[in-house]
Amino acid sequence: MAADKDFKYNNMITGKNYIGKDLSSKGNQTYNTFDPNANQATEWTFYEATKEEIDSAVGKADEAFQVYKNLSGAKKAQFLEAIAEELEALGDELTRTYCKESGLPQGRAMGERGRTMGQLRAFAELLKEGSWVEATIDTAQPDRQPFPKLDLRKMLLPIGPIAVFGSSNFPFAFSTAGGDTASALAAGCPVIVKSHPMHAGTGELVSSAIIKAAERTGMPDGVFSNLNSSGIEVGQQLVLHPKVKGVGFTGSIKGGTALYQLANERKEPIPVFAEMGSINPVVVLPSALQEKGAFWAQQYAGSIMLGAGQFCTNPGLILGVKSTSLDVFIDALGEEIEKLEPSCMLHPNIHSNYEKGKEEVSAQGGTDVVAEYKKQTAPNYARQKILTVNGVNFLKNPKLHQEVFGPFSVVVRCTDANELTEVLNCLEGQLTGTVLGNAEEIERYGSVIDALQGRVGRLIFNGVPTGVEVCPSMQHGGPFPASTDSRFTSVGVSAIKRWVRPVSFQNWPQEALPEALRDNNPLSIMRIVDSAHTNKKIE
Amino acid sequence: MAADKDFKYNNMITGKNYIGKDLSSKGNQTYNTFDPNANQATEWTFYEATKEEIDSAVGKADEAFQVYKNLSGAKKAQFLEAIAEELEALGDELTRTYCKESGLPQGRAMGERGRTMGQLRAFAELLKEGSWVEATIDTAQPDRQPFPKLDLRKMLLPIGPIAVFGSSNFPFAFSTAGGDTASALAAGCPVIVKSHPMHAGTGELVSSAIIKAAERTGMPDGVFSNLNSSGIEVGQQLVLHPKVKGVGFTGSIKGGTALYQLANERKEPIPVFAEMGSINPVVVLPSALQEKGAFWAQQYAGSIMLGAGQFCTNPGLILGVKSTSLDVFIDALGEEIEKLEPSCMLHPNIHSNYEKGKEEVSAQGGTDVVAEYKKQTAPNYARQKILTVNGVNFLKNPKLHQEVFGPFSVVVRCTDANELTEVLNCLEGQLTGTVLGNAEEIERYGSVIDALQGRVGRLIFNGVPTGVEVCPSMQHGGPFPASTDSRFTSVGVSAIKRWVRPVSFQNWPQEALPEALRDNNPLSIMRIVDSAHTNKKIE
Repeated sequence: MAADKDFKYNNMITGKNYIGKDLSSKGNQTYNTFDPNANQATEWTFYEATKEEIDSAVGKADEAFQVYKNLSGAKKAQFLEAIAEELEALGDELTRTYCKESGLPQGRAMGERGRTMGQLRAFAELLKEGSWVEATIDTAQPDRQPFPKLDLRKMLLPIGPIAVFGSSNFPFAFSTAGGDTASALAAGCPVIVKSHPMHAGTGELVSSAIIKAAERTGMPDGVFSNLNSSGIEVGQQLVLHPKVKGVGFTGSIKGGTALYQLANERKEPIPVFAEMGSINPVVVLPSALQEKGAFWAQQYAGSIMLGAGQFCTNPGLILGVKSTSLDVFIDALGEEIEKLEPSCMLHPNIHSNYEKGKEEVSAQGGTDVVAEYKKQTAPNYARQKILTVNGVNFLKNPKLHQEVFGPFSVVVRCTDANELTEVLNCLEGQLTGTVLGNAEEIERYGSVIDALQGRVGRLIFNGVPTGVEVCPSMQHGGPFPASTDSRFTSVGVSAIKRWVRPVSFQNWPQEALPEALRDNNPLSIMRIVDSAHTNKKIE
Repeated sequence: MAADKDFKYNNMITGKNYIGKDLSSKGNQTYNTFDPNANQATEWTFYEATKEEIDSAVGKADEAFQVYKNLSGAKKAQFLEAIAEELEALGDELTRTYCKESGLPQGRAMGERGRTMGQLRAFAELLKEGSWVEATIDTAQPDRQPFPKLDLRKMLLPIGPIAVFGSSNFPFAFSTAGGDTASALAAGCPVIVKSHPMHAGTGELVSSAIIKAAERTGMPDGVFSNLNSSGIEVGQQLVLHPKVKGVGFTGSIKGGTALYQLANERKEPIPVFAEMGSINPVVVLPSALQEKGAFWAQQYAGSIMLGAGQFCTNPGLILGVKSTSLDVFIDALGEEIEKLEPSCMLHPNIHSNYEKGKEEVSAQGGTDVVAEYKKQTAPNYARQKILTVNGVNFLKNPKLHQEVFGPFSVVVRCTDANELTEVLNCLEGQLTGTVLGNAEEIERYGSVIDALQGRVGRLIFNGVPTGVEVCPSMQHGGPFPASTDSRFTSVGVSAIKRWVRPVSFQNWPQEALPEALRDNNPLSIMRIVDSAHTNKKIE
């Protein structure tokens, strides 16, 4: 990180909140972000948003909604594409700030920025194509007996201003301009971001790109705001604000569940999609151990270490049936992971939580250490550790089922496939579940696979869970507590479905209908007309 | 109802619970249903389900789920069609029981039974067609830079056993074999019904039809159970049971909200779709008053009186701008509604709640009586009433915004279109919103229409809100408190979406994939392959 010392920041970071397009710092509480590599605070000071600023941001969002909800898909697509362009235009200043505030390396910053731009563009494409609104039309049957059937048409429309809580571990892709923001803006919903305090500078720069893009493409003021906050009050006020109509969150189970409960206790409860991570069980079947044990050991050492283990799809639990080849695999995994060098975690708090979690789980009865990086490191570096435990001890101890955020994994040696199934059935909901083996084993271990499928949002065969492709078939979510609502995803274009609701128009005049529902299908979208898919107009 | 006295019931009603296919009466608490026309209890005694019976029903449902979730769409369609047949096979015994327990007339019973059978068959058609699973496939790109893209495929899969709470006012269509049950069974989820205490006999007969259909089509035992309950404990235990994974409810705001909160406080919160009714605002624009005032007065008198006003889409609020023609319309509405004869409500409790609600609203300052049926009636008959109030008094008094369940409506005379918009903006979420006028007025009164659209699930032009067509484009739900989640519907085939979640399969072997996701598309369904709709196979 020596190079960073020579880099000249242009002082684009003001530390202020974006209330729509206006920079604002009415409060007197401030905080700094932290450079975990240098192990010291950054030079950037941020102004905590005040209640007045929160009200103002939400009020602007509500006003913007009245205009923004009626913009065409093409116009919203321009906005999203412009955000991608403006992000890129921030150049080195942005990626350097990201690295400084997160401790993550430049290559990762570049990759994640690319992913974030790709997401914005994927939603732009979705809007330009237009069929995502699920236009469904049932034409009138005036002669039907005993009652005539009226003309009825339905499509998805935006629900209103959305509060977005970014994650610590993806300052670009799951934060200020990440999947929650991109999907809400695509849906036609203004966004108010509760900035993540660990990367408030990165957040401000990204916000400036969004505001520039909004102005350049003629979006209403208030379509986006960014509120600084180092505590929980700003977030709580946002979630309780009557004009906020939905919440997107990526982070801890504790934080996500608290916001979920808060939103449900409102006079008007609102949907909360909180993605809260998981331990991502991996089932290693005999053929994988026998034929590719060394390969998978290496792959999994890398997957566990990726991004200092700070991925929500990090493989924290590996399950196999006791055998010599399982022992060989476990040894190899240990050897491989000890070869790798620790890297810097996002923040001293995250590092100390990691150390605490690791110790707590290691202290549980029946656990043995497989591998542990013991050498001294620079401050905030995450030293990897692998434990092993048998099925009985795992089953009786829920402490072993919890996520330890960092490069840490538990390998469970089960007596047989039945015990393995039992272990899967005792787990909470998970983002992913992985099977290493061959196709024939998927059938033979049917009840194992079935149990895994019932617990997860995404099933992976012969791969690692880290790496979440942004594409329409991605499901990033899962049964609670992987997410608060397993029926939605936060990655991929389907993420837009969280922020829209169907509205039916009965006997509505053609000229007053939204374009997506008109007889002549001016958007040429795929629709369901009288129960059949078609992109034709209605004659 | 004199005819009922001569009808010979076959004593098919045992008063017991269905725990899967087994009749069970382990409890010692009993209750009777009530015949509101005769104003006396029926001869049928029901055994309140015990905690043990609840556990047993849910346990059976969970076991059945392991089998039922994997059945083909065709097989589940057979089951749903068989339920429709068995309902019809119950003949007069069923409709007579319905009438006796609800006070509703035979014609309504026949119509609602037809609707219920139609719903079951609509879901059967949906399953046979098969595209509803939203199969989405992104094929592999092994040469993509910088990383290869893996094969990823996603579809909707059932979430698990569902608890269904039927409504009082639709003993067939929104109850034991109603839309919630039909959609959950179609999704692949076993159902445990918490029987409505006002029509427990009807519920038992319908349950017997479902059980017969399940046995006839080879469904696993436990795919359906029916639990009697006159209090709230059975429902609470069901919602809190760890193996119950979702809740469907139709009824009051108080009941629905309580279950919603309960479900959210679980260790593993589960989705609750509660449809809780509304006052269904109707905006009468000048042209409708001038050109068709007398026609709409007659139509609305009929709509308000339909089913003794016990429809969740009953028009409880009519809004217009002060004018001579509005006065003429209000007088005509009053005259028309006074011509109609009251009918019997579902239960003495519902009748007394109606009387209480009517009195309470009538006592509010600034209200005037437009029409009121004053003659003596038989017990439990609902005497209609129409009030009028000006916009200012309506705006400042939330008591006037609440639903009075019965043939009761408030007409608000607004000063101008701005005040009308203000009135709409102060309303809670609604199932429907209606506009009477012409197409040109929809544009002219843009902000009125916009405000209405933001509050409702279904917009109606020149019609009455009563009458909820069962078709794919129906949205029956709306912003809270019309429903607990405006993103779903309880009527129409989209209702199935409440009980399913997307699961992604990454790099999964062809032969182990569900049929809907295989390359050769054996079900010939519409899919999204590499972002394009197609029903072709992948070559």
